Amino acid sequence: MPHTTLPIALDAASGDHGAAPNVEGAVQAARAGVPVLLVGPRVALHAELGKHAGSASLPLTVVDAPDVIGMDEHASDVRSRTGASINVCTRLVKEGQAAAAVSMGHSGATMASALLTLGRVKGVDRPAILTHLPSKKGFVTLLDVGANADVKPPYLAQWARLATVYLRVVEDRQDPTVGLLSIGEEDHKGSQLVLEAHALLRELDGHGIRFHGNVEGRDIFQGTTDIVVTDGFTGNVVLKLAEGEAKVLFGWVRDALGGSLQTKLGGLLVRGALRGLAERMDPSTYGASILLGVRGLAFIGHGSADARAVKNALLRASRAHEANLIARLEAALAPQGG
Amino acid sequence: MPHTTLPIALDAASGDHGAAPNVEGAVQAARAGVPVLLVGPRVALHAELGKHAGSASLPLTVVDAPDVIGMDEHASDVRSRTGASINVCTRLVKEGQAAAAVSMGHSGATMASALLTLGRVKGVDRPAILTHLPSKKGFVTLLDVGANADVKPPYLAQWARLATVYLRVVEDRQDPTVGLLSIGEEDHKGSQLVLEAHALLRELDGHGIRFHGNVEGRDIFQGTTDIVVTDGFTGNVVLKLAEGEAKVLFGWVRDALGGSLQTKLGGLLVRGALRGLAERMDPSTYGASILLGVRGLAFIGHGSADARAVKNALLRASRAHEANLIARLEAALAPQGG
Repeated sequence: MPHTTLPIALDAASGDHGAAPNVEGAVQAARAGVPVLLVGPRVALHAELGKHAGSASLPLTVVDAPDVIGMDEHASDVRSRTGASINVCTRLVKEGQAAAAVSMGHSGATMASALLTLGRVKGVDRPAILTHLPSKKGFVTLLDVGANADVKPPYLAQWARLATVYLRVVEDRQDPTVGLLSIGEEDHKGSQLVLEAHALLRELDGHGIRFHGNVEGRDIFQGTTDIVVTDGFTGNVVLKLAEGEAKVLFGWVRDALGGSLQTKLGGLLVRGALRGLAERMDPSTYGASILLGVRGLAFIGHGSADARAVKNALLRASRAHEANLIARLEAALAPQGG
Repeated sequence: MPHTTLPIALDAASGDHGAAPNVEGAVQAARAGVPVLLVGPRVALHAELGKHAGSASLPLTVVDAPDVIGMDEHASDVRSRTGASINVCTRLVKEGQAAAAVSMGHSGATMASALLTLGRVKGVDRPAILTHLPSKKGFVTLLDVGANADVKPPYLAQWARLATVYLRVVEDRQDPTVGLLSIGEEDHKGSQLVLEAHALLRELDGHGIRFHGNVEGRDIFQGTTDIVVTDGFTGNVVLKLAEGEAKVLFGWVRDALGGSLQTKLGGLLVRGALRGLAERMDPSTYGASILLGVRGLAFIGHGSADARAVKNALLRASRAHEANLIARLEAALAPQGG
């Protein structure tokens, strides 16, 4: 069965570390039954593939696309560089030759390419980047984490509907709750944007979404709601703060454990338990974020992604495709679907 | 000397836990040489004072103000309830009978009262709440953390100047760097607000502030800059997320250490080291946040403040007064001070 499914198009030389982690992650995903199109400079990709014994028998195909948009180039380059690897990926999706496009490269370029090539789901003004963070309840789903620095109230309402469908279809959460990120739980608190979005979300409650009300920064790790909607500026700050804080706090824990002979001994004893925790906080666990609202599957990962992150992104993309996510999003956003 | 200095006016029955932590914190501050006016319901405050042996000989004076604005009441009540305890505190500052007003109560009411009674420093459009978070470099100074949900670019530039003076005068950091919170380090990234504020801050660089450029969420705990300026919506989300995340992560560390006999033993050995860390993250360490830009000293603490937080807030208020902070802020913001 797996070999007959549509492959995932991976922008395979993109990201901070180039082809190596991408190809290794693709090999792992292929071993798990997910076919992958490795899009990028042919020679470099074959060289990387050669390092993995037995990769020749896996469902992996190299698609030559020597032009890779670098991390420090402009997102707008996707318009003129039509042969750029990310454009090849999104075109493969558009033409029905790939189930999804996945890139660990320039996130702005990935967004621009996906939007230009695939267009938007009807009823969606702007696509948003949806990601997951660990929480006391397992994980919390946050959007937008950076696609739209300036937003309008209806965007937040649309994203709440999209994220609700996503959690139902891809993560099997049947009745997810939506929180609107604000600076107080009270309805009358917040920015002008939040006040107007609150009214729209209140109207949607029971019609496509389950609206909990406003939530605060502290509710994110508490997991007060399944979904937290916010503008792409605040969401991006939240994501980067959450990851940065975890890194610094775990560093302090490590330092604290290295302090004296007594704590060193204790540190050895607790090391395994703490490693489990660090893994829970590791962005690689979720692999990549989905660009939600585009009419086709597109995933954006960390530039620093390792092979595990790439593999998890490919598996997630495959799951979203098999669950028929795009059609389900379109149905939910269609006038009769509200 | 200490007994001849101007006392701090404490809104002594405010906050989630009423008079007990306020009075205990005031007793501790008074023992450290800071005289305090305990403003609130006379009988209740005397009853609390009676629990502390030797408090009669300390520089503590009760000022009767039976009307305390509750945590669930409206900030606008400060207008009509002129005798409310927070209004008594800010009037004592205005009249030169107190060096500063400190409240662990309703933060909106405290802001409104301070602004109405004390007015603004010339050249400041809107006061901001300035607070500290721990960072790899010791601590980072963040503003605004909630006074202004919607802001204009010049506010951010004014706050950068105020915070620079504050760090020089109260925290003895001679040449603090300013970062503008954004969603990318590049100058051209960010919301419309950030793009415009960036240009203003760039102009001020070398004239009152040292502008580092844009910083991201991850830079906060890294301590990339001494000061991070942002709007009060984003800043409040950052503050509450940072505190909430630390609480959840340390909870996970505790749980991980309680898992097996081996990790339990290890946990006993490392407990002291971790307690030091938890203290570093504890908001009580900094006591309270200053309302910066008001023409008089006003501090706002957590509703959940304990005696240690109250004491630290009173000591910090005393230090700001002795350093002549308000006059220094006025001088820096005056046309010739730029």
